[in-house]
Amino acid sequence: MTEATTKNDAGWLSGEEMDAARERLPILYVDAVPVRVDDQGVVTSVGLLLRAGSDGLVKRALVSGRVLYHERVRSALLRHLEKDLGPLALPRVPPAPQPFTIAEYFPTPGVTPFHDPRQHAVSLAYVVPVEGDCAPQQDALELTWFTPQEVREPTLLAELANGQSHLLLQALAHLGV
Amino acid sequence: MTEATTKNDAGWLSGEEMDAARERLPILYVDAVPVRVDDQGVVTSVGLLLRAGSDGLVKRALVSGRVLYHERVRSALLRHLEKDLGPLALPRVPPAPQPFTIAEYFPTPGVTPFHDPRQHAVSLAYVVPVEGDCAPQQDALELTWFTPQEVREPTLLAELANGQSHLLLQALAHLGV
Amino acid sequence: MTEATTKNDAGWLSGEEMDAARERLPILYVDAVPVRVDDQGVVTSVGLLLRAGSDGLVKRALVSGRVLYHERVRSALLRHLEKDLGPLALPRVPPAPQPFTIAEYFPTPGVTPFHDPRQHAVSLAYVVPVEGDCAPQQDALELTWFTPQEVREPTLLAELANGQSHLLLQALAHLGV
Amino acid sequence: MTEATTKNDAGWLSGEEMDAARERLPILYVDAVPVRVDDQGVVTSVGLLLRAGSDGLVKRALVSGRVLYHERVRSALLRHLEKDLGPLALPRVPPAPQPFTIAEYFPTPGVTPFHDPRQHAVSLAYVVPVEGDCAPQQDALELTWFTPQEVREPTLLAELANGQSHLLLQALAHLGV
Repeated sequence: MTEATTKNDAGWLSGEEMDAARERLPILYVDAVPVRVDDQGVVTSVGLLLRAGSDGLVKRALVSGRVLYHERVRSALLRHLEKDLGPLALPRVPPAPQPFTIAEYFPTPGVTPFHDPRQHAVSLAYVVPVEGDCAPQQDALELTWFTPQEVREPTLLAELANGQSHLLLQALAHLGV
Repeated sequence: MTEATTKNDAGWLSGEEMDAARERLPILYVDAVPVRVDDQGVVTSVGLLLRAGSDGLVKRALVSGRVLYHERVRSALLRHLEKDLGPLALPRVPPAPQPFTIAEYFPTPGVTPFHDPRQHAVSLAYVVPVEGDCAPQQDALELTWFTPQEVREPTLLAELANGQSHLLLQALAHLGV
Repeated sequence: MTEATTKNDAGWLSGEEMDAARERLPILYVDAVPVRVDDQGVVTSVGLLLRAGSDGLVKRALVSGRVLYHERVRSALLRHLEKDLGPLALPRVPPAPQPFTIAEYFPTPGVTPFHDPRQHAVSLAYVVPVEGDCAPQQDALELTWFTPQEVREPTLLAELANGQSHLLLQALAHLGV
Repeated sequence: MTEATTKNDAGWLSGEEMDAARERLPILYVDAVPVRVDDQGVVTSVGLLLRAGSDGLVKRALVSGRVLYHERVRSALLRHLEKDLGPLALPRVPPAPQPFTIAEYFPTPGVTPFHDPRQHAVSLAYVVPVEGDCAPQQDALELTWFTPQEVREPTLLAELANGQSHLLLQALAHLGV
């Protein structure tokens, strides 16, 4: 949920109009936790992006972005996965639309564990197994795979912005790993 | 998802601004299926509203409405339940934020089973046990309780607008009744 | 949940001991609904087995079977999928252990929509995308793929035994198709 | 999942027969995380039992127990809640049968995070809001309510046996608190 992401998918709105909408309406997002699974479907690693934020700081991030007007949630998920992981990542978006949780990003810190200074965003969160080769694209500098153990390290979790460490831990709990 | 509902909760936007946003962004909604449960938690009946739409036609409907800027999804659910069922309904909103499904209402019919001529709305759907006395409010003319068997009758399902019969059947399947 | 299935995976128990346990304890099962998905993850078809039951009748069935002592639920799912669909089916068992529902098969008809004359079985139900080539094995005579529309046909649903038509409809509702 | 619990609900089996079954079959359990919610449905506290185990040690525990032959999962949940929390606890068992996760307790430590030296048990896990007065019964010595923050304390989590601290953290993640 970095500045850079949303610049790229402003869709049918000019930046100015989008800014106006952001002060008035909750904006619909998707969050994806990319995972590698073994042939039994057990999660062996979790992918985190390294991203340069608009504040110049480099942060870890999940795959995340806005749902556009007249776009299916499923298509938005695939678009953001391809944008961040490249066209050969082969993401396996789950067949059912039920998210494992929702994340409510508030412009005011502390209302929920999630925070986005630019807007009130409500995100549908999915775990997405990725089978192909990942090559970070655009503003994503790097994709790194961590084992479920590594990814729980407090120092690593601290590198995630906007409360996404909370969402990552929710995903791991849902996966039972 | 009638015209009347959304007029009432236009929130921080003028009607004109809301109309503009509706042509540009997916709008976040909640849908609630009100149920009565017995002391084992088994669903004994499902509540449907009778509503006068802006086209003058009377239709059955689920409890449904927009999430406002800076409003929690949980608070939006409670606000719409109270608006439609009255202040003594005692709804038991589920403690976990995971919806049982999402419904994607498209302005173009046929993209999904859900259709809303006014807008692209994405709705988080919940089953909500209701323990108190329900008294329809505002544009809701009546609330009627049906058994899970009655509510599956094709003639009754046909009275639901916008594809909400599909969502109702999804709720019943999720409940296992 | 045919006689034939369970004979094959009686595991550590003699047939006689298993019969005794079946009169005393709920038996843990898994049910899998095999699906084909397109590259967006949308379900395009649902697979049903044709099986010869111990009563000599041929019936449609989901992939279904017992969880053995000291076996992971995930491994049981894969074992039954491989047993029924063959070794090249490439099933994608979901990474999270949460079933989309549970099915309670009672020896007495009418307690739930699910019925198994031999036993009280409780089944964890999953939707499993299958990517490879399926070749029915052992007592499964055939695997047929149906579109989500075809599979809802009352004549087809009537060919499923033990209330599995109910479980199939629950799966379709969960998938939103 | 203490020795004492299962002695009480041995059901239709003699202790000896149950011991034999436990060496041969996975045993079906339910786990309940009792919670208090405010009038918005937000979890304000989580209840943990204090129980004397067969080894003489006092341990914290979730509400947990076996599903009997010919018993609905829902009835088993209510029976164990009443047994542990007393007849005036007014548990609100969720209307849908989908558990938020399953816990696989293995007799061999390390296969999963869950361990039960006596048996292979597979448990369906639910969060259950409790509205009435709780009075611990039978082998439950005490019920203590903790805030979601308190319950995450490592010293408290360490008092839970059999890996139930893992299940408790999964419940908190599912609840988004």
